[in-house]
Amino acid sequence: MPADHIRISRIKTAMRRVGLDALILRLPENIVMSMGVWPMNGFSYALITSQAGPTALIAPSCEDQEMADCWSADVRFFTWPRLEMSDPLEAIRRELVDLAAKHNLKHARIGYEGSFEYVAPSHNGGEVMVACESSIAYLKSVLPKAQWTDASDLLNNLRATKTPMEVERLRIAHKVAAMGLRKFQQSAQPGIRETELAAEVYSQCLVGGMNLPGVKHLNVYPQISSGPNAHRAWRPIVSTTKRRLQEGELAVLELAVCVDGFWADVTRVKAAGEPLPIQRDAYAAVKKAQAAAIKSIKAGIRASRPHQVATDILIKAGFEKQIVHLTGHGVGFRYHEPEPFLLPANSMKLRVGHVCSVEPGLYDPAWGGIRIEDNVVVTAEGAEVLTHAAKKLT
Amino acid sequence: MPADHIRISRIKTAMRRVGLDALILRLPENIVMSMGVWPMNGFSYALITSQAGPTALIAPSCEDQEMADCWSADVRFFTWPRLEMSDPLEAIRRELVDLAAKHNLKHARIGYEGSFEYVAPSHNGGEVMVACESSIAYLKSVLPKAQWTDASDLLNNLRATKTPMEVERLRIAHKVAAMGLRKFQQSAQPGIRETELAAEVYSQCLVGGMNLPGVKHLNVYPQISSGPNAHRAWRPIVSTTKRRLQEGELAVLELAVCVDGFWADVTRVKAAGEPLPIQRDAYAAVKKAQAAAIKSIKAGIRASRPHQVATDILIKAGFEKQIVHLTGHGVGFRYHEPEPFLLPANSMKLRVGHVCSVEPGLYDPAWGGIRIEDNVVVTAEGAEVLTHAAKKLT
Repeated sequence: MPADHIRISRIKTAMRRVGLDALILRLPENIVMSMGVWPMNGFSYALITSQAGPTALIAPSCEDQEMADCWSADVRFFTWPRLEMSDPLEAIRRELVDLAAKHNLKHARIGYEGSFEYVAPSHNGGEVMVACESSIAYLKSVLPKAQWTDASDLLNNLRATKTPMEVERLRIAHKVAAMGLRKFQQSAQPGIRETELAAEVYSQCLVGGMNLPGVKHLNVYPQISSGPNAHRAWRPIVSTTKRRLQEGELAVLELAVCVDGFWADVTRVKAAGEPLPIQRDAYAAVKKAQAAAIKSIKAGIRASRPHQVATDILIKAGFEKQIVHLTGHGVGFRYHEPEPFLLPANSMKLRVGHVCSVEPGLYDPAWGGIRIEDNVVVTAEGAEVLTHAAKKLT
Repeated sequence: MPADHIRISRIKTAMRRVGLDALILRLPENIVMSMGVWPMNGFSYALITSQAGPTALIAPSCEDQEMADCWSADVRFFTWPRLEMSDPLEAIRRELVDLAAKHNLKHARIGYEGSFEYVAPSHNGGEVMVACESSIAYLKSVLPKAQWTDASDLLNNLRATKTPMEVERLRIAHKVAAMGLRKFQQSAQPGIRETELAAEVYSQCLVGGMNLPGVKHLNVYPQISSGPNAHRAWRPIVSTTKRRLQEGELAVLELAVCVDGFWADVTRVKAAGEPLPIQRDAYAAVKKAQAAAIKSIKAGIRASRPHQVATDILIKAGFEKQIVHLTGHGVGFRYHEPEPFLLPANSMKLRVGHVCSVEPGLYDPAWGGIRIEDNVVVTAEGAEVLTHAAKKLT
């Protein structure tokens, strides 16, 4: 993968603007952005200086394959895992001190990741490694004379607008997600279990996605909710149960796919068998609201606008009481990114390269939950929809 | 789920021993241990005092179903997620201040999670929430007159030995994992793709596991590695590719399963078609080494002993150069827990209730990788193997 010079230039420009001499990054999602590689575990340290050239990566020896495509020519490995009980932090310390000497960073102003809470899992999703309070204290202890600054705002701001190369990577993640949505559309029939549906979606995305050119690592997170649970599907994440879809019930698929560190977050709803008239009406309203919200998007409008457009349509269709959540959030380097939130109170303006979900929804204990979610890239003229998969209730 | 009084009593005894008045916990894995519930997102705060009674949980309103089984009677919810852009930390602050007043904790010695790096994902595995440097600073700011202490060592020590109720939960996780191992054994045939095999294992565990009584939430993390990649399967985690198994090649399944916060970590190897004589020899040696290592385990022996027993057998069989990793690690509240490591240098003694993997392995670029991994509970007389699934090369 060639280096993304637009991204590198944006990072360095932003650093110089706030007077940062260097960034030392641990979160896999920020290493994806700044180095072009997706760590397997999350035990890597990326160094970026505000100078034109130098960057470096310190990574575990077992991740040599993952790090082969790193944009930096200066990749250093420490032995991990080990057969002995020695401490890898000693080896990492030596590399950091050496890099600091090489790039004159002993007294530098260095940014780190101090505020995140949400973390995008590395490829080893069963066990995530993160920089906790003591990991940051360790980092500070290695270069005690540096001025350490929490660079979380700067990083979040950088991440919010994607470069053309990043959008290209997101297109691949969405191609994989669309495979899952199509499988769901076929398979959500009366009699199938939620677990069986989730497994079919997982299989389709993993097997089909890994067959696409350029895909190295892929994680799939499907969640199905149906019948009496479907109106609860506005939760941050729903939870697949063993229940079988009954005739006339709605099933909701909430699907996250991560391809080499780039995320898609999409949702579809399908009626098992014949839906109720009220379900047809609600579905039509959500579909119309989503289309109008997407149509309203372009660089320069306020982030509250698409939410307002969607909400107006839903209210006009008689579903005011069934509206419970926002209309969109940032997405790309993580399942959910903070910018831009499509929320009533958000007066910020959309910018070219913003990538966000557009996901109006209606929820009613009487007939279930309906949410249609696609991700779009904001352009100067409008919005490019990344998901290419039909939206059909039946 | 009834409260685990042995666990609660152990936590409080340990707190009193080190003079801690309270613990405030965020990591889902520690909330599983101390409250009996598995958070969906990881945005929950558990309070445990060293007094006989009081505990409390502060959780997001969207997780009311997950928290229904909480051992504490004092469960408080904050509205999250929201339609407005308000800050949930304000609501959490009010609850924490109220609890501190109620339990007289304003000047108390309070333990928190300051050192972890590895994190067990919550049920929403696609996006993990963790307490980073600023989350801990927030916590300290809420009760600025308390004496805050990093309680990570105390927590790791508590987690290392499991109670009878916890072992019961682990048995269920291992029942699910065994379903995946059996599916792998059947399906690892020439011609199948690694991705297809991983998807079959996922499906078997999810669909079969959720059908078991008492299982609420389940995550499955399968990874397959085969042929020329299989000798690399000693990595912390291997990575499934699209390659098809060829006649005579080895396939390795590395499988993690989490059932309601309790983890199994198991591995099997299967030859696709007819293995080479050297592969048969190596497999027989690993199987023998694992059996002997397990047989050597009981409370009171040193953690280095099972490793030595396994290694002696592998060396005697002529495979010294193919040994690259330790023989075991703690497991249960996470995929990998730090205690007990079955390592040459580890002189600590095994205790009743320790749960660890036993996973000797041999790796050679010439013929592939072989690792057999089961998890065991240490007892006074020996070791109870939690995984019930055959070990057969063909």
